[in-house]
Amino acid sequence: MAISSVDKYARQKSLEILREKFALVAKRILEGKKPVLVMPKRVLSNTIYDMNKKLLLLGPEMKRRSLLDVNEARKFMQTLLMASIIYEALVNDEYPTIRDLYYRGKHTISYRDISGKLHHENTWDEQRESDAVIRDIEVFLGVLREEMLILSKEKGKVVGNLIIKSGDDVIDLSRMGHGAYAIEPTPDLIEFKDIDAEFVLVVEKDAVFQQLHRYGFWKKYKAILITSAGQPDRATRRFVRRLSEELKLPIYILTDADPYGWYIYSVFKIGSITLSYESERLATPNAKFIGVSMTDIFGEEEAAKNINKLASIFGKEIKEVISKPKKKAYLSEKERRNYIIKAKKKDVERAVELIGYDVADKLIRNPEIKKYIRQKKLGVSGYPWFRTPEWIKEISIFFSKLAKLEIEAMASKGLKFLADTYIPTKIETGDWID
Amino acid sequence: MAISSVDKYARQKSLEILREKFALVAKRILEGKKPVLVMPKRVLSNTIYDMNKKLLLLGPEMKRRSLLDVNEARKFMQTLLMASIIYEALVNDEYPTIRDLYYRGKHTISYRDISGKLHHENTWDEQRESDAVIRDIEVFLGVLREEMLILSKEKGKVVGNLIIKSGDDVIDLSRMGHGAYAIEPTPDLIEFKDIDAEFVLVVEKDAVFQQLHRYGFWKKYKAILITSAGQPDRATRRFVRRLSEELKLPIYILTDADPYGWYIYSVFKIGSITLSYESERLATPNAKFIGVSMTDIFGEEEAAKNINKLASIFGKEIKEVISKPKKKAYLSEKERRNYIIKAKKKDVERAVELIGYDVADKLIRNPEIKKYIRQKKLGVSGYPWFRTPEWIKEISIFFSKLAKLEIEAMASKGLKFLADTYIPTKIETGDWID
Repeated sequence: MAISSVDKYARQKSLEILREKFALVAKRILEGKKPVLVMPKRVLSNTIYDMNKKLLLLGPEMKRRSLLDVNEARKFMQTLLMASIIYEALVNDEYPTIRDLYYRGKHTISYRDISGKLHHENTWDEQRESDAVIRDIEVFLGVLREEMLILSKEKGKVVGNLIIKSGDDVIDLSRMGHGAYAIEPTPDLIEFKDIDAEFVLVVEKDAVFQQLHRYGFWKKYKAILITSAGQPDRATRRFVRRLSEELKLPIYILTDADPYGWYIYSVFKIGSITLSYESERLATPNAKFIGVSMTDIFGEEEAAKNINKLASIFGKEIKEVISKPKKKAYLSEKERRNYIIKAKKKDVERAVELIGYDVADKLIRNPEIKKYIRQKKLGVSGYPWFRTPEWIKEISIFFSKLAKLEIEAMASKGLKFLADTYIPTKIETGDWID
Repeated sequence: MAISSVDKYARQKSLEILREKFALVAKRILEGKKPVLVMPKRVLSNTIYDMNKKLLLLGPEMKRRSLLDVNEARKFMQTLLMASIIYEALVNDEYPTIRDLYYRGKHTISYRDISGKLHHENTWDEQRESDAVIRDIEVFLGVLREEMLILSKEKGKVVGNLIIKSGDDVIDLSRMGHGAYAIEPTPDLIEFKDIDAEFVLVVEKDAVFQQLHRYGFWKKYKAILITSAGQPDRATRRFVRRLSEELKLPIYILTDADPYGWYIYSVFKIGSITLSYESERLATPNAKFIGVSMTDIFGEEEAAKNINKLASIFGKEIKEVISKPKKKAYLSEKERRNYIIKAKKKDVERAVELIGYDVADKLIRNPEIKKYIRQKKLGVSGYPWFRTPEWIKEISIFFSKLAKLEIEAMASKGLKFLADTYIPTKIETGDWID
């Protein structure tokens, strides 16, 4: 068999934790006690934004799942079924995906009740249900699914002066030609062997990654160049986090100038709201948003126009940050005209979600959009990590201009401009959002 | 500058062709003749399925674009504008994407007509327009956009006993650890150095690719393992074609058992219908559909049930192919029950498109779906390459069962089953569709 020694070791480790944690359940049964599982609650009300760590974390609330409670018996059984499937897969050198764990456990249980009537019940009906059970097991064990050799689709790519060991191979990520190294779904098993780089640039768009790679950006500027190819998956997030934490490299995130891009940055930095329990391991609190920012497009004067309206929400302190325009826009009036794209309603909705309804309602002038947002009743209060002076400045420009821009537009000014002027200037002058 | 010597050479080659072809246009102008571009028509009516080559090709019809014809002047100017932007990019060592070519050319031309009235016209309004112009230039020059160093997003990955040269690096694709090699957007610039493999397995799904890779499938069976991560992009298709053509490797395509999977196979093998002009370079006529087939799920007896209905459409010859069940299903009745998914209306529509309305109308029993298909007026006659006995057998089962299945379901029977039984048996017994 061609399975790597790294995987064998990972299997042993996860098997031990699985055995140990579930042995406690078995012990209770043998002692004649009620079988019960206790784990942190994975709900929004138990999700806490830790201001110091700058992370979304699970709070202290716990849930108990008991076999002998009618409301909990189904969930209890599902959890044990899934744990046993994962256990089997570990023992048998399998590499399941969450999709095939769903299939592996999917069957119909037929039973008769006391009156003799026949009943049929499915173990689970949809993957959403089995996925939730997998998350419960991750939280219960304190182990990420990847550590249990559960694989998934992976989009992230990397190139740069970095030598890693993956499986039984040593790989030089500076020798990938025009191609790139596709990150493995289990990035915790990667060993960093040697590095000669000064920062990490994560690009949202694969096509822009290809351009910068081909141009030799990472060689010239001693960068590790990564793309998440859109919304980052878990493996890419964990890989970036490890580069930040273990190799102490600054992380810069480059996305389109739109709410979708801001959200991608937020997922890298803070974590995803629905999966807060992973943030502690997957998020990179030090990640910086390098652009494309609204002030790069329109200049800082644009934000200053909103200053009084913003002060009415955030108090006078906001004035200090916004009132001092330091830099000019990177685009001329003519370029702006050709490059910017009208924001769609969906963009505006997403921006409202990030910064809060109060800001949107004060700043949007377009009556149709204003009406739309009001009708939608997006009475959200925003995410705390976006209600900072720097982001308020950014998003306020978005609301007054209702415009967005793609990174490709920056490359249209010339790849040299993007690679040799825009990105280096932003880094040198510290012109990012933290 | 860190640009590879391979790219420098490619630029020179494309620049020469560009200069030569457009010099002819300039020459006509200098001679006082009408400036005109002549190129093959890229329309469905000029798309021919070549039965011998098993390829979609552009037919002999040509279109002329003249500057001095009011209906053609805009397109003529767009073509020259785009050609000049591509030329500039080549000269300046740029690597544009089709998205940024759109931005580079996008501007408003203002002019006054004879009566002095001011007009404004955009060079192009949407990327669809500029993309069409790029295709015209590809056809006009007989050069793929990738050869002009126009890059794009790329999803394809590969591992296996294959040593390539890409850019200035020599890369051993058997030493990628748990990760993979992400194929470059310009696969014609790859040089194959050494190979020790017996076939190529292309897997539609990235997650299944990860599983087979991790399991050591390609080492054990001497395979080159590739994923297209869904609908294949141009680079992955060209890479697979080159493995078939230059290294003479058999190509097996493994997709979900559904019309979407069949279409992915069709794109690899025949080409995409909208972009037939590329097929001659991107399609792999020798590619074989290895599964998951409907007969793998339901057995061949299932097809035999439709034999008379099919004979009424395709004649008695079809009986011979369908009437002899040779193999049993790979799934038990119980597994089928747990694994198969009800086909959606969209699946049925897509299948009708592939095989033709006559087959669907004869075989679909579900009254609701039958009515839906009739209402939709999908009076299509199918693609000739799907109206072969083997595919008729396959798709007839789909219409009577209205069910589909994902590859992951096969992995749920155990990764060992997928890797050591299902795929090897299919290959050894020649149980594929050509």
